Amino acid sequence: MDILKDKIRKEGIVLSDQVLKVDAFLNHQIDPRLMKEIGHAFAERYRGDGVTKIVTIEASGIAPAVMAGLELGVPVIFARKFQSLTLKNDLLISKVFSFTKQTESTIAISAKHLSADDHVLVVDDFLANGHAAKALIDLIGQAGSSIAGLGIVIEKSFQDGRTLLEGEGYRVESLARVKSLADGQVTFLD
Amino acid sequence: MDILKDKIRKEGIVLSDQVLKVDAFLNHQIDPRLMKEIGHAFAERYRGDGVTKIVTIEASGIAPAVMAGLELGVPVIFARKFQSLTLKNDLLISKVFSFTKQTESTIAISAKHLSADDHVLVVDDFLANGHAAKALIDLIGQAGSSIAGLGIVIEKSFQDGRTLLEGEGYRVESLARVKSLADGQVTFLD
Repeated sequence: MDILKDKIRKEGIVLSDQVLKVDAFLNHQIDPRLMKEIGHAFAERYRGDGVTKIVTIEASGIAPAVMAGLELGVPVIFARKFQSLTLKNDLLISKVFSFTKQTESTIAISAKHLSADDHVLVVDDFLANGHAAKALIDLIGQAGSSIAGLGIVIEKSFQDGRTLLEGEGYRVESLARVKSLADGQVTFLD
Repeated sequence: MDILKDKIRKEGIVLSDQVLKVDAFLNHQIDPRLMKEIGHAFAERYRGDGVTKIVTIEASGIAPAVMAGLELGVPVIFARKFQSLTLKNDLLISKVFSFTKQTESTIAISAKHLSADDHVLVVDDFLANGHAAKALIDLIGQAGSSIAGLGIVIEKSFQDGRTLLEGEGYRVESLARVKSLADGQVTFLD
Protein backbone atom coordinates (compact mmCIF):
# COMPACT_ATOMS: atom_id res chain seq x y z
CA MET A 1 0.00 0.00 0.00
CA ASP A 2 2.00 2.91 -1.36
CA ILE A 3 0.43 5.83 0.50
CA LEU A 4 1.03 4.03 3.79
CA LYS A 5 4.65 3.29 2.91
CA ASP A 6 5.18 6.91 1.85
CA LYS A 7 3.72 8.07 5.16
CA ILE A 8 6.01 5.72 7.10
CA ARG A 9 9.05 6.95 5.13
CA LYS A 10 8.16 10.61 5.71
CA GLU A 11 6.76 10.61 9.25
CA GLY A 12 7.91 7.37 10.86
CA ILE A 13 10.78 7.61 13.34
CA VAL A 14 13.23 4.72 13.64
CA LEU A 15 14.05 4.57 17.35
CA SER A 16 16.21 1.44 17.11
CA ASP A 17 16.72 -1.64 14.93
CA GLN A 18 13.53 -3.00 16.54
CA VAL A 19 11.28 0.01 17.12
CA LEU A 20 9.45 2.15 14.58
CA LYS A 21 7.49 5.07 16.04
CA VAL A 22 4.44 6.14 14.06
CA ASP A 23 2.92 8.51 16.60
CA ALA A 24 2.44 11.14 13.90
CA PHE A 25 -0.37 9.31 12.08
CA LEU A 26 -1.34 6.04 13.81
CA ASN A 27 -0.41 5.58 17.48
CA HIS A 28 -1.09 8.98 19.01
CA GLN A 29 -2.02 11.46 16.30
CA ILE A 30 -4.29 9.80 13.73
CA ASP A 31 -4.65 10.72 10.07
CA PRO A 32 -8.36 10.01 9.42
CA ARG A 33 -8.04 9.99 5.62
CA LEU A 34 -5.23 7.45 5.78
CA MET A 35 -7.34 5.34 8.18
CA LYS A 36 -10.14 5.37 5.61
CA GLU A 37 -7.73 4.11 2.93
CA ILE A 38 -6.45 1.45 5.32
CA GLY A 39 -10.00 0.36 6.15
CA HIS A 40 -10.73 0.16 2.43
CA ALA A 41 -7.62 -1.96 1.83
CA PHE A 42 -8.67 -4.44 4.56
CA ALA A 43 -12.23 -4.52 3.20
CA GLU A 44 -10.92 -5.25 -0.31
CA ARG A 45 -8.89 -8.20 0.97
CA TYR A 46 -11.68 -9.77 3.03
CA ARG A 47 -14.82 -8.81 1.09
CA GLY A 48 -16.85 -11.90 0.26
CA ASP A 49 -15.23 -13.97 3.02
CA GLY A 50 -18.27 -13.89 5.28
CA VAL A 51 -16.78 -11.65 7.99
CA THR A 52 -19.44 -10.89 10.63
CA LYS A 53 -17.32 -9.01 13.20
CA ILE A 54 -13.98 -7.26 13.49
CA VAL A 55 -11.97 -7.65 16.69
CA THR A 56 -9.11 -5.31 17.57
CA ILE A 57 -7.33 -4.12 20.71
CA GLU A 58 -7.37 -0.67 22.27
CA ALA A 59 -6.26 1.94 21.48
CA SER A 60 -4.35 2.14 18.18
CA GLY A 61 -6.27 -0.64 16.44
CA ILE A 62 -9.61 1.14 16.79
CA ALA A 63 -9.37 3.71 13.98
CA PRO A 64 -8.34 1.28 11.19
CA ALA A 65 -10.79 -1.36 12.49
CA VAL A 66 -13.75 1.04 12.51
CA MET A 67 -13.00 2.18 8.96
CA ALA A 68 -12.84 -1.46 7.82
CA GLY A 69 -16.06 -2.22 9.71
CA LEU A 70 -17.81 0.72 8.06
CA GLU A 71 -16.97 -0.59 4.62
CA LEU A 72 -17.68 -4.26 5.39
CA GLY A 73 -20.88 -3.33 7.24
CA VAL A 74 -19.98 -5.19 10.45
CA PRO A 75 -19.52 -4.20 14.12
CA VAL A 76 -16.08 -3.75 15.69
CA ILE A 77 -15.16 -4.99 19.16
CA PHE A 78 -12.07 -3.67 20.89
CA ALA A 79 -10.45 -5.85 23.52
CA ARG A 80 -9.69 -3.99 26.73
CA LYS A 81 -6.26 -4.01 28.34
CA PHE A 82 -6.01 -4.34 32.10
CA GLN A 83 -2.85 -4.06 34.14
CA SER A 84 -4.68 -5.88 36.88
CA LEU A 85 -8.07 -7.27 36.16
CA THR A 86 -10.89 -7.15 38.66
CA LEU A 87 -12.90 -10.28 38.02
CA LYS A 88 -16.14 -9.53 36.24
CA ASN A 89 -18.92 -11.66 34.86
CA ASP A 90 -18.95 -12.83 31.28
CA LEU A 91 -15.45 -11.71 30.41
CA LEU A 92 -13.16 -13.78 28.21
CA ILE A 93 -9.57 -13.06 29.18
CA SER A 94 -6.11 -13.78 27.80
CA LYS A 95 -2.54 -12.70 28.62
CA VAL A 96 -0.07 -10.79 26.42
CA PHE A 97 3.59 -10.21 27.12
CA SER A 98 4.93 -7.00 25.58
CA PHE A 99 8.62 -7.12 24.70
CA THR A 100 8.63 -3.36 24.05
CA LYS A 101 7.31 -2.56 27.52
CA GLN A 102 8.58 -5.72 29.28
CA THR A 103 5.24 -6.15 31.01
CA GLU A 104 2.53 -8.76 30.95
CA SER A 105 -0.98 -7.48 30.55
CA THR A 106 -4.39 -9.06 30.48
CA ILE A 107 -6.83 -8.37 27.66
CA ALA A 108 -10.54 -9.00 27.82
CA ILE A 109 -13.65 -9.14 25.68
CA SER A 110 -17.21 -9.38 26.90
CA ALA A 111 -18.53 -12.83 26.01
CA LYS A 112 -21.90 -11.52 24.93
CA HIS A 113 -20.62 -9.75 21.80
CA LEU A 114 -19.14 -12.86 20.13
CA SER A 115 -20.74 -16.23 19.40
CA ALA A 116 -20.14 -19.48 17.53
CA ASP A 117 -21.90 -17.92 14.53
CA ASP A 118 -19.28 -15.20 14.17
CA HIS A 119 -16.52 -15.23 11.57
CA VAL A 120 -13.95 -12.71 12.73
CA LEU A 121 -11.41 -10.45 11.06
CA VAL A 122 -8.65 -9.52 13.53
CA VAL A 123 -7.24 -6.02 12.94
CA ASP A 124 -4.19 -4.55 14.63
CA ASP A 125 -1.77 -1.68 14.08
CA PHE A 126 1.45 -3.72 14.36
CA LEU A 127 2.50 -7.34 13.96
CA ALA A 128 5.87 -8.11 15.54
CA ASN A 129 6.28 -11.37 17.45
CA GLY A 130 2.56 -12.11 17.17
CA HIS A 131 1.84 -12.19 20.92
CA ALA A 132 -0.99 -9.65 20.81
CA ALA A 133 -2.53 -11.35 17.76
CA LYS A 134 -2.32 -14.75 19.46
CA ALA A 135 -4.05 -13.39 22.56
CA LEU A 136 -6.87 -11.96 20.42
CA ILE A 137 -7.18 -15.29 18.56
CA ASP A 138 -7.33 -17.03 21.94
CA LEU A 139 -10.22 -14.78 23.09
CA ILE A 140 -12.10 -15.33 19.84
CA GLY A 141 -11.59 -19.08 20.15
CA GLN A 142 -12.96 -19.01 23.71
CA ALA A 143 -16.14 -17.49 22.29
CA GLY A 144 -16.36 -20.33 19.76
CA SER A 145 -16.04 -17.96 16.81
CA SER A 146 -14.00 -18.74 13.71
CA ILE A 147 -11.24 -16.57 12.24
CA ALA A 148 -11.36 -15.18 8.69
CA GLY A 149 -7.81 -13.86 9.00
CA LEU A 150 -5.73 -10.94 10.21
CA GLY A 151 -5.45 -7.43 8.86
CA ILE A 152 -2.25 -5.72 9.99
CA VAL A 153 -1.32 -2.10 9.25
CA ILE A 154 2.46 -2.47 9.74
CA GLU A 155 4.26 -5.81 9.87
CA LYS A 156 7.80 -6.04 11.19
CA SER A 157 8.76 -8.85 8.86
CA PHE A 158 12.13 -9.31 10.58
CA GLN A 159 10.27 -10.65 13.62
CA ASP A 160 8.50 -13.99 13.61
CA GLY A 161 4.82 -13.07 14.06
CA ARG A 162 3.79 -13.88 10.49
CA THR A 163 5.64 -17.22 10.49
CA LEU A 164 4.02 -18.15 13.79
CA LEU A 165 0.49 -17.24 12.62
CA GLU A 166 0.79 -18.74 9.15
CA GLY A 167 2.24 -21.88 10.75
CA GLU A 168 -1.03 -22.24 12.63
CA GLY A 169 -3.01 -21.81 9.42
CA TYR A 170 -4.10 -18.17 9.75
CA ARG A 171 -4.22 -15.81 6.81
CA VAL A 172 -2.17 -12.66 7.39
CA GLU A 173 -2.72 -9.54 5.27
CA SER A 174 -0.27 -6.74 6.08
CA LEU A 175 -0.46 -3.37 4.33
CA ALA A 176 3.19 -2.45 4.88
CA ARG A 177 5.87 -5.10 5.46
CA VAL A 178 9.02 -3.72 7.03
CA LYS A 179 12.06 -5.81 6.13
CA SER A 180 14.55 -3.88 8.25
CA LEU A 181 15.03 -0.87 10.51
CA ALA A 182 18.83 -1.13 10.40
CA ASP A 183 20.95 2.06 10.25
CA GLY A 184 17.95 4.25 11.06
CA GLN A 185 16.37 3.39 7.69
CA VAL A 186 13.01 1.78 6.95
CA THR A 187 13.29 -0.82 4.20
CA PHE A 188 10.15 -2.55 2.91
CA LEU A 189 9.84 -6.15 1.71
CA ASP A 190 7.93 -5.37 -1.47
CA MET B 1 -29.81 13.15 17.29
CA ASP B 2 -32.64 10.66 16.91
CA ILE B 3 -30.76 7.58 15.68
CA LEU B 4 -28.40 7.89 18.65
CA LYS B 5 -31.28 8.26 21.12
CA ASP B 6 -33.05 5.26 19.56
CA LYS B 7 -29.87 3.22 19.90
CA ILE B 8 -29.51 4.24 23.56
CA ARG B 9 -33.15 3.31 24.26
CA LYS B 10 -32.79 -0.08 22.54
CA GLU B 11 -29.26 -1.15 23.49
CA GLY B 12 -28.24 0.99 26.46
CA ILE B 13 -28.33 -0.68 29.87
CA VAL B 14 -29.19 1.40 32.93
CA LEU B 15 -26.96 0.00 35.67
CA SER B 16 -27.97 2.56 38.31
CA ASP B 17 -29.36 6.10 38.62
CA GLN B 18 -25.88 7.29 37.66
CA VAL B 19 -24.50 4.73 35.21
CA LEU B 20 -25.58 4.05 31.62
CA LYS B 21 -23.75 1.20 29.92
CA VAL B 22 -23.42 1.51 26.15
CA ASP B 23 -20.97 -1.33 25.55
CA ALA B 24 -23.11 -2.63 22.70
CA PHE B 25 -22.31 0.22 20.29
CA LEU B 26 -19.83 2.73 21.76
CA ASN B 27 -17.64 1.61 24.68
CA HIS B 28 -16.67 -1.95 23.78
CA GLN B 29 -18.49 -3.03 20.63
CA ILE B 30 -18.63 -0.15 18.14
CA ASP B 31 -21.27 0.45 15.47
CA PRO B 32 -19.20 2.00 12.64
CA ARG B 33 -22.21 3.37 10.74
CA LEU B 34 -23.49 5.13 13.87
CA MET B 35 -19.97 6.51 14.44
CA LYS B 36 -20.04 7.95 10.93
CA GLU B 37 -23.37 9.68 11.68
CA ILE B 38 -21.97 10.98 14.96
CA GLY B 39 -18.85 12.28 13.21
CA HIS B 40 -21.08 13.98 10.67
CA ALA B 41 -23.17 15.60 13.42
CA PHE B 42 -20.04 17.02 15.09
CA ALA B 43 -18.71 18.23 11.73
CA GLU B 44 -22.03 19.98 11.00
CA ARG B 45 -21.88 21.82 14.32
CA TYR B 46 -18.26 22.97 13.99
CA ARG B 47 -17.82 23.39 10.23
CA GLY B 48 -16.56 26.87 9.42
CA ASP B 49 -15.23 27.45 12.93
CA GLY B 50 -11.57 27.05 11.95
CA VAL B 51 -10.95 23.73 13.71
CA THR B 52 -7.41 22.52 12.94
CA LYS B 53 -7.23 19.46 15.25
CA ILE B 54 -9.49 17.19 17.24
CA VAL B 55 -8.35 15.99 20.65
CA THR B 56 -9.98 13.02 22.39
CA ILE B 57 -9.04 10.45 25.01
CA GLU B 58 -8.45 6.74 24.57
CA ALA B 59 -10.22 4.47 23.96
CA SER B 60 -13.94 5.17 23.46
CA GLY B 61 -13.49 8.69 22.10
CA ILE B 62 -11.38 7.53 19.17
CA ALA B 63 -14.07 6.21 16.81
CA PRO B 64 -16.37 9.28 16.91
CA ALA B 65 -13.35 11.63 16.82
CA VAL B 66 -11.84 9.96 13.75
CA MET B 67 -15.16 10.12 11.88
CA ALA B 68 -15.46 13.83 12.71
CA GLY B 69 -11.83 14.36 11.69
CA LEU B 70 -12.43 12.62 8.37
CA GLU B 71 -15.29 14.96 7.55
CA LEU B 72 -13.60 18.14 8.82
CA GLY B 73 -10.32 17.15 7.15
CA VAL B 74 -8.21 17.50 10.32
CA PRO B 75 -5.96 15.15 12.34
CA VAL B 76 -7.12 13.54 15.58
CA ILE B 77 -4.93 13.22 18.68
CA PHE B 78 -5.90 10.83 21.43
CA ALA B 79 -4.61 11.53 24.93
CA ARG B 80 -3.07 8.49 26.58
CA LYS B 81 -4.07 7.29 30.02
CA PHE B 82 -1.39 6.18 32.44
CA GLN B 83 -1.99 4.59 35.82
CA SER B 84 1.54 5.61 36.71
CA LEU B 85 3.43 7.71 34.28
CA THR B 86 7.11 7.20 33.61
CA LEU B 87 8.45 10.66 32.90
CA LYS B 88 9.12 11.14 29.21
CA ASN B 89 10.29 14.07 27.15
CA ASP B 90 7.88 16.49 25.57
CA LEU B 91 4.77 15.17 27.28
CA LEU B 92 2.02 17.46 28.51
CA ILE B 93 0.27 15.80 31.43
CA SER B 94 -2.86 16.34 33.51
CA LYS B 95 -4.76 14.41 36.20
CA VAL B 96 -8.34 13.05 36.07
CA PHE B 97 -10.30 11.61 38.96
CA SER B 98 -12.87 9.04 37.88
CA PHE B 99 -15.92 8.81 40.16
CA THR B 100 -17.07 5.64 38.39
CA LYS B 101 -13.79 3.85 39.05
CA GLN B 102 -12.76 5.84 42.17
CA THR B 103 -9.23 6.19 40.83
CA GLU B 104 -7.04 9.08 39.78
CA SER B 105 -5.28 8.68 36.48
CA THR B 106 -2.82 10.74 34.50
CA ILE B 107 -3.46 11.62 30.87
CA ALA B 108 -0.81 12.79 28.45
CA ILE B 109 -0.35 14.27 25.00
CA SER B 110 2.91 14.67 23.13
CA ALA B 111 3.71 18.39 22.96
CA LYS B 112 4.86 18.19 19.36
CA HIS B 113 1.42 17.53 17.90
CA LEU B 114 -0.23 20.72 19.22
CA SER B 115 0.86 24.35 18.89
CA ALA B 116 -0.35 27.89 19.51
CA ASP B 117 -1.69 27.91 15.94
CA ASP B 118 -4.14 25.10 16.66
CA HIS B 119 -7.85 25.60 17.26
CA VAL B 120 -9.10 22.42 18.87
CA LEU B 121 -12.39 20.54 18.97
CA VAL B 122 -12.51 18.28 22.03
CA VAL B 123 -14.49 15.07 21.45
CA ASP B 124 -15.48 12.55 24.10
CA ASP B 125 -17.97 9.72 24.49
CA PHE B 126 -19.49 10.91 27.79
CA LEU B 127 -19.83 14.16 29.70
CA ALA B 128 -20.71 13.67 33.37
CA ASN B 129 -18.99 15.85 35.96
CA GLY B 130 -16.64 17.30 33.34
CA HIS B 131 -13.40 16.10 34.93
CA ALA B 132 -12.09 14.33 31.82
CA ALA B 133 -13.04 17.28 29.62
CA LYS B 134 -11.33 19.70 32.00
CA ALA B 135 -8.15 17.61 31.94
CA LEU B 136 -8.16 17.62 28.12
CA ILE B 137 -8.74 21.39 28.10
CA ASP B 138 -5.83 21.75 30.54
CA LEU B 139 -3.52 19.78 28.20
CA ILE B 140 -4.59 21.83 25.20
CA GLY B 141 -4.02 25.04 27.16
CA GLN B 142 -0.52 23.88 28.11
CA ALA B 143 0.23 23.59 24.38
CA GLY B 144 -0.98 27.18 23.89
CA SER B 145 -3.80 26.05 21.56
CA SER B 146 -7.28 27.56 21.64
CA ILE B 147 -10.54 25.63 22.04
CA ALA B 148 -13.33 25.72 19.43
CA GLY B 149 -15.64 23.77 21.74
CA LEU B 150 -16.62 20.31 22.86
CA GLY B 151 -18.42 17.54 21.00
CA ILE B 152 -19.97 15.00 23.36
CA VAL B 153 -21.77 11.83 22.29
CA ILE B 154 -23.80 11.32 25.49
CA GLU B 155 -24.27 13.98 28.15
CA LYS B 156 -25.54 13.07 31.59
CA SER B 157 -27.39 16.33 32.03
CA PHE B 158 -28.22 15.50 35.67
CA GLN B 159 -24.52 15.92 36.49
CA ASP B 160 -22.79 19.28 36.44
CA GLY B 161 -20.26 18.92 33.60
CA ARG B 162 -22.07 21.19 31.16
CA THR B 163 -22.69 23.88 33.78
CA LEU B 164 -19.03 23.80 34.77
CA LEU B 165 -17.76 24.03 31.17
CA GLU B 166 -20.26 26.65 30.01
CA GLY B 167 -19.46 28.65 33.15
CA GLU B 168 -15.89 28.85 31.91
CA GLY B 169 -17.04 30.00 28.50
CA TYR B 170 -16.74 26.77 26.54
CA ARG B 171 -19.26 25.75 23.90
CA VAL B 172 -20.72 22.29 24.56
CA GLU B 173 -22.48 20.34 21.81
CA SER B 174 -23.97 17.05 23.02
CA LEU B 175 -25.73 14.69 20.64
CA ALA B 176 -27.86 12.99 23.29
CA ARG B 177 -28.71 14.71 26.59
CA VAL B 178 -29.82 12.30 29.28
CA LYS B 179 -32.11 14.00 31.82
CA SER B 180 -32.51 11.01 34.11
CA LEU B 181 -31.68 7.34 34.59
CA ALA B 182 -34.18 6.94 37.45
CA ASP B 183 -36.24 3.73 37.73
CA GLY B 184 -34.09 1.96 35.15
CA GLN B 185 -35.40 4.28 32.41
CA VAL B 186 -33.46 6.62 30.12
CA THR B 187 -35.21 9.98 29.75
CA PHE B 188 -33.83 12.60 27.38
CA LEU B 189 -33.88 16.37 27.81
CA ASP B 190 -35.07 17.19 24.30
